[in-house]
Amino acid sequence: MTEKKHIVNAPLLTPVDESLEPDPARLAKHMTRVMADGCHRVTLFGTTGEANSFSVLQRTVCLEALIDRGAVPDNLVVGTGCPALADTVALTRHAFDRGVRDVLILPPYYYKNMSEDGLFASYAEVMERLGERSLRVYLYHYPKMSGVPVTAGLIERLLQQYPETFAGIKDSSGDRANLLNWLKRYPELAIFPGAESQLVEALEAGAAGVISAVANVNASAIRELLDRWSAGERDLAALEARVDQVRRIFESVAMAPALKTMVAQRYKDSHWKRVVPPLQELPADAAEPFLDKLRAVRPDFLK
Amino acid sequence: MTEKKHIVNAPLLTPVDESLEPDPARLAKHMTRVMADGCHRVTLFGTTGEANSFSVLQRTVCLEALIDRGAVPDNLVVGTGCPALADTVALTRHAFDRGVRDVLILPPYYYKNMSEDGLFASYAEVMERLGERSLRVYLYHYPKMSGVPVTAGLIERLLQQYPETFAGIKDSSGDRANLLNWLKRYPELAIFPGAESQLVEALEAGAAGVISAVANVNASAIRELLDRWSAGERDLAALEARVDQVRRIFESVAMAPALKTMVAQRYKDSHWKRVVPPLQELPADAAEPFLDKLRAVRPDFLK
Repeated sequence: MTEKKHIVNAPLLTPVDESLEPDPARLAKHMTRVMADGCHRVTLFGTTGEANSFSVLQRTVCLEALIDRGAVPDNLVVGTGCPALADTVALTRHAFDRGVRDVLILPPYYYKNMSEDGLFASYAEVMERLGERSLRVYLYHYPKMSGVPVTAGLIERLLQQYPETFAGIKDSSGDRANLLNWLKRYPELAIFPGAESQLVEALEAGAAGVISAVANVNASAIRELLDRWSAGERDLAALEARVDQVRRIFESVAMAPALKTMVAQRYKDSHWKRVVPPLQELPADAAEPFLDKLRAVRPDFLK
Repeated sequence: MTEKKHIVNAPLLTPVDESLEPDPARLAKHMTRVMADGCHRVTLFGTTGEANSFSVLQRTVCLEALIDRGAVPDNLVVGTGCPALADTVALTRHAFDRGVRDVLILPPYYYKNMSEDGLFASYAEVMERLGERSLRVYLYHYPKMSGVPVTAGLIERLLQQYPETFAGIKDSSGDRANLLNWLKRYPELAIFPGAESQLVEALEAGAAGVISAVANVNASAIRELLDRWSAGERDLAALEARVDQVRRIFESVAMAPALKTMVAQRYKDSHWKRVVPPLQELPADAAEPFLDKLRAVRPDFLK
């Protein structure tokens, strides 16, 4: 058992209209639903939310509209990491000015094999330009997608230089050994695995919770797992397996398009299926077997 | 010998001021110099120009200022490819509206392992939204940096669908076999290697010229090589070796910071050394030996 509150955080899908513009009305309703389902918080503009498919203007307008529709800034983590320093600063400043304190920052992901000095400088420049001690920065480690790994050296320099502002890491590497190593080495950071697979092991090792794409649709079961673990229960293998089974169905196709396909079914709203290129909607001949598999394990998902 | 005009194109370095904003005054002077040195054209906002370190606003303001200072749009290729579709469209539209016809478009490089359908859709969406037949689109193949290779399937679909608009490819892969294969298979495209190494072989195989970072400082020798080849000379090994020797000195450190260090020396203007994180200036203990090596092979570079 632990005194620390553990968090289920859904990196929200971003619905788009016919012109591929973010659709804040549908987004706000979806946020309300996933919070009601059990998420403590949500992340706006992570990978699942196709963050990198939208301009700075689209992202800032969408965040404004979401807050206008009642989203509580404290419930939001906002993804703000871009290849261009000026964009990362602009998005971070905008979120902060709207009351958001937690930002998830990808490394500048165009340039590969940069020096640790260079990566540190790019984060330091953001912190210095913001100059806000109450900002909480989370590093976003997703090397398979970004091509730019967060390294121990980078973490340690940021911890030393910005102990107040540097708050944690989302580890979407799927590399168990890496996650456990960081959890052990950096107990002062809030470290979130990017998937609910083997969540109990991660929690035992000190994880702050989970930021999982699948929490867009399966927040209640993930929350149940976390709550029962927090309450001291340890015989959670069956629940964990059930949660993982759902995840694997999404992973067997393509995560964001599959989630959008399911949400479109759940909300009976085909607009939800739309994705921004280079992502592609699940083709019908993949969507049907995928939905069938989901229905088989979770008849409650799609009634 | 060939009837087609072959092009030396320098992907311009982007000088930045103390706030890391692009500095169009210095850029315009540098453009004038490299054109005088022998470039037929220049590329604004390629990798060497740290394109992906600047926001859409910084890029559009800089292009405007460059044209205001007398840059002829026909002499410009403008890099416009971003992860976000809306950004690629905005930059391409802006360049086109300012009279630029040639744009170099990276694939949306955040998302890895996307389907060919998805990559095709992202380029098609740009072409369709622009709706300008006089636009000339060049694909930018730089898989080591972007993590997203241009494939034969993508090329062929774009050729079939947009034969007027799809004009060519910059191949920065450094993969000789790939370059020669594309030159053979796609004679209708203007294909440029991203380096002057083995340029004669590429020209023999049908390359349209070269787009080389090193042309920021060594345009005259690269132009001489190309002109002598175009005039029918074939005994060019010595000149080619001399050109390549210069390139290898830059490659032995880090291309853009090294070029900026040399240009700062050439123009006696230390502002030029500045780069945007995650790039880092060459440290003094690397800069001195690098400049010494350059001076040894090309005393005329730094007088």
